[in-house]
Amino acid sequence: MIKVSVLYPNTPGSRFDVDYYTSVHMPMSVRLLGSALKDVSVEIGIGSAVLGDPAPFAAIAGFTCESVEAFTAAFMPVADQLQRDIPKYTDIAPIFQISELKEI
Amino acid sequence: MIKVSVLYPNTPGSRFDVDYYTSVHMPMSVRLLGSALKDVSVEIGIGSAVLGDPAPFAAIAGFTCESVEAFTAAFMPVADQLQRDIPKYTDIAPIFQISELKEI
Repeated sequence: MIKVSVLYPNTPGSRFDVDYYTSVHMPMSVRLLGSALKDVSVEIGIGSAVLGDPAPFAAIAGFTCESVEAFTAAFMPVADQLQRDIPKYTDIAPIFQISELKEI
Repeated sequence: MIKVSVLYPNTPGSRFDVDYYTSVHMPMSVRLLGSALKDVSVEIGIGSAVLGDPAPFAAIAGFTCESVEAFTAAFMPVADQLQRDIPKYTDIAPIFQISELKEI
């Protein structure tokens, strides 16, 4: 299994609308990716290693799929629609990470 | 529920021993954190948004607990032991992120 993580660095002065992201954008992502999506996670940053310091990331979304090919096949047809939605909740340029999920 | 993510930025020239991390360090982390740990994930970076580009992070570990307090109570007594193990698999300084997990 692979996981595509979309990380939003918590840059000073940036804008991130948690309500829109969790109630509109992420449900839309799940619906558009359809059955290719085996699991999804939504993390909203609340802190760091040092008490009182801001979280390094405003948010991290995780999309788990069987393979990179399965993700790509589901994502490419809806990529424009999803990316056009991003300015509605943030001005942060997200970081994309593709990972292999390891069982331990 | 909260998730503590430990992210290892994939800096050029850095060292990261995936075998040691997945077969020794992460199982030790799970054992030491004990029943406070409700879920764990291990992601090993394989790519980015652009085909052929390196993954932004060599690895991302995720520790899910009921609360920040539950994580802290389990982690503090074993923090030294876990942190002393880090140089055995990497010279990367990890980033710590504390997040609230959202259901969508």
